[in-house]
Amino acid sequence: MAKQGLHNFFEPKSVAIIGASATPGKLGYIAVNNLLRIGYRGKIYPVNPKGGEMLGLKVFKNVKDIPEIVDVALVLIPAAFVVDTMKELAEKGVKSVVIVTGGFSEVDEKGAKMEEEIVRVAKGAGIRIMGPNTTGVISFPANFTTTFLNVDKLKVGGASYVAQTGNFGSITLLWILSRENFGISRVIGLGNKCDIDDADAIEYLGEDPCTKSIGMYIEGLKDGRRFIEVAKKVVRSKPVMVLKSGRTKAGARAAASHTASIAADDDIVDSALKQAGVIRVNNYGDLVSFAKAFNFQPPPLNNRIGAITPSGGLGVCTSDAIESMGLSITNLSEKTISKLKEITPPLVKVGNPFDIWPAVSNHGVEKCYAVGLEAILNDPNVDGVLVGFMQSPGVTELKNVDFLIDIMKKYSNKPVIAYCTGEWNLVEELRELFETHSEIQVPVYEFPEQASEALAVMYRYTEAINRLKK
Amino acid sequence: MAKQGLHNFFEPKSVAIIGASATPGKLGYIAVNNLLRIGYRGKIYPVNPKGGEMLGLKVFKNVKDIPEIVDVALVLIPAAFVVDTMKELAEKGVKSVVIVTGGFSEVDEKGAKMEEEIVRVAKGAGIRIMGPNTTGVISFPANFTTTFLNVDKLKVGGASYVAQTGNFGSITLLWILSRENFGISRVIGLGNKCDIDDADAIEYLGEDPCTKSIGMYIEGLKDGRRFIEVAKKVVRSKPVMVLKSGRTKAGARAAASHTASIAADDDIVDSALKQAGVIRVNNYGDLVSFAKAFNFQPPPLNNRIGAITPSGGLGVCTSDAIESMGLSITNLSEKTISKLKEITPPLVKVGNPFDIWPAVSNHGVEKCYAVGLEAILNDPNVDGVLVGFMQSPGVTELKNVDFLIDIMKKYSNKPVIAYCTGEWNLVEELRELFETHSEIQVPVYEFPEQASEALAVMYRYTEAINRLKK
Repeated sequence: MAKQGLHNFFEPKSVAIIGASATPGKLGYIAVNNLLRIGYRGKIYPVNPKGGEMLGLKVFKNVKDIPEIVDVALVLIPAAFVVDTMKELAEKGVKSVVIVTGGFSEVDEKGAKMEEEIVRVAKGAGIRIMGPNTTGVISFPANFTTTFLNVDKLKVGGASYVAQTGNFGSITLLWILSRENFGISRVIGLGNKCDIDDADAIEYLGEDPCTKSIGMYIEGLKDGRRFIEVAKKVVRSKPVMVLKSGRTKAGARAAASHTASIAADDDIVDSALKQAGVIRVNNYGDLVSFAKAFNFQPPPLNNRIGAITPSGGLGVCTSDAIESMGLSITNLSEKTISKLKEITPPLVKVGNPFDIWPAVSNHGVEKCYAVGLEAILNDPNVDGVLVGFMQSPGVTELKNVDFLIDIMKKYSNKPVIAYCTGEWNLVEELRELFETHSEIQVPVYEFPEQASEALAVMYRYTEAINRLKK
Repeated sequence: MAKQGLHNFFEPKSVAIIGASATPGKLGYIAVNNLLRIGYRGKIYPVNPKGGEMLGLKVFKNVKDIPEIVDVALVLIPAAFVVDTMKELAEKGVKSVVIVTGGFSEVDEKGAKMEEEIVRVAKGAGIRIMGPNTTGVISFPANFTTTFLNVDKLKVGGASYVAQTGNFGSITLLWILSRENFGISRVIGLGNKCDIDDADAIEYLGEDPCTKSIGMYIEGLKDGRRFIEVAKKVVRSKPVMVLKSGRTKAGARAAASHTASIAADDDIVDSALKQAGVIRVNNYGDLVSFAKAFNFQPPPLNNRIGAITPSGGLGVCTSDAIESMGLSITNLSEKTISKLKEITPPLVKVGNPFDIWPAVSNHGVEKCYAVGLEAILNDPNVDGVLVGFMQSPGVTELKNVDFLIDIMKKYSNKPVIAYCTGEWNLVEELRELFETHSEIQVPVYEFPEQASEALAVMYRYTEAINRLKK
């Protein structure tokens, strides 16, 4: 029998909550309440032996009483009862189960035995399991969640995340929702991975039309070979970024104690991921930072970068950042140079990076950026642009970005990545203007090195695709 | 004749502004106005051939009319008149001059000739010059500034900055004042360095009791050997962090065009800085980020780090971060482990990092952090602590930090560095609570890798001192 796909986990038309509770604060209450709060449009069937009502919904005494075969069941009851529940779900014909409950292989031998039994039942009935010991999924396009995380602000977008541990996934999501301007598609907490694992997750996300980029937190892979095979396919259509921890001895020890992950030689992991075209990141924040770039801008087709800087010093730093990250400060064409010379005072040298500072007092900040951006984007030697802003009140301050968006629309195949320093409130304002623009969104980082790194990672992705397509 | 020190530039009892102007918006107006705005307590003598009054001050028609020998003169007039002014200042007996005016060696041969003439006059009269082509100094402890930057919020503290270009110094200062919670001592824009150079600047800051840490932006060093000699001395009493740009080919090209800095083999620069115990940083933001750590906490005496984490996943990432940066996840003593076991559920393994998550539901967030921090700080195997927070509303949220500060006071020779992720507003609140505390300030970073890096840099400083003192 062919394996069920994961579609039901993310777009279920109905869900049973096994272990629903009418007591506010309990997991079984939060789960039902969260579905109602975020506007889940499918049918919700709370299940609890006590029956009755909760939050305006009828509570079913057991699974078999539910008047339909639900698309997904969410299991919240204590570990000891899960095997029996699995049997009931199998009998009912349910094919997708999220087991939130912990106390299985992550705890002891007895738990591992129960987990094996669960898998046996599931296999016999063609059930796919997410978990156990997980927060499960959040699916923004379907207003669906199985997690205990209170999500109010649903910003639907293209970034999907897969985390080995639910806590990690939740906290990353909290950060993104409260701090970032890009939207989310699917979030998956894999837990013990008794059935669905990292490879299954990215296989699904690879085919998911809502997902534009995939970020992963992995402590250990049970079947590294299969993951690499699947990743190779997925990378052709969307970037996969992996934070694989346990890369040091202390990290490996901590991973073993946290998720019983077996240490792998990190050099081998590293080269396998590289071979698969996966972008490996070593900082937790990079999973967020790079997703922003991928969701807002196209990757550069080659590594020839043009830069615009608000000061000479930042120009030197930007040059270092770009070139030390495997990109190239390109030679601008004669035509571009003469356009830039038109606004620059006669004694000042013009090159790449283009420093707007000497031109600002004669032409004003807006004109300098407009002339610079148009000339550089139009240059055939340029594959992407890094623009620096300096929010110095009354000096190089920008309060409007529409004129720059208009220029970018003409060259929408070339990425523009920005950084902005200066007075914090003004920096935040500019970031908001660029990142939440209705037409083209420009990711804004704080410093030239972060922006350069985002651009470099996008270029590495282009290289990976080209290599895989050969 | 012995060279004048730089004291007058930072603690002048009187200042002449040559090129003062009564017209708002002009540099000569802003300079005088800024001094009044930030509450400069010395005498201000505006100088302009037109005479009259400005901002309630008498304007002197020329330097010789000023009724005293001013401690410092600020020169804002066009380049062509600067040589004559220098002669007048020499005659008057002024010994410290900031030349803001540009148009000298940074522009052309003719400018270079004028600069040479200025230096000749200055040497003959024992005058020290800062500049030309600079914004000069900001001295927070003296409420003194020569820059055109509007500084309203004076937060006096221990971080001093030296930048080759004034713009760079100003924008870094703007960022710090509007975004950071640590205070500033002296900011120096060196400009063309016709007299006072990087070595002079750090020599002064090294002896300045107000300065606790020194951050520098350097594009080129005219006398690298002397800089290294001076740095070796300064590093014994306070950390020196250097962002030396021009480390790539494109960067060196940009530096040559920006400040006519001559490219040096970057490997040689790197090893010279290392030998001198200077902390080299490659990211613009690090100059800010590491200054925060040095100004808030003592460096660790050795590299044995204890970590407290709010989730298992973050514990694995923290372990990787700490060990990959040359620190060590230490083995906690038996005594510490048993203290941590007292609050941890029986089946959960306890180690370093200490994960509070399993203990939170039984003991609450505050108790978990308190027990963890006290036990780990008290451990003789621990030289510094990295604490992670996760501002997840109602789950691991902290609204008060006093109980942690009380514990830290008992172990004030061991640094505590924090990171905090989660819901942005709550993260910002926690950062504010820790960084602006009246007794002990804990630097809060966003992600474990940034916090680990700050701790690692502090330890590198300890190593440097130990080596230099041998």
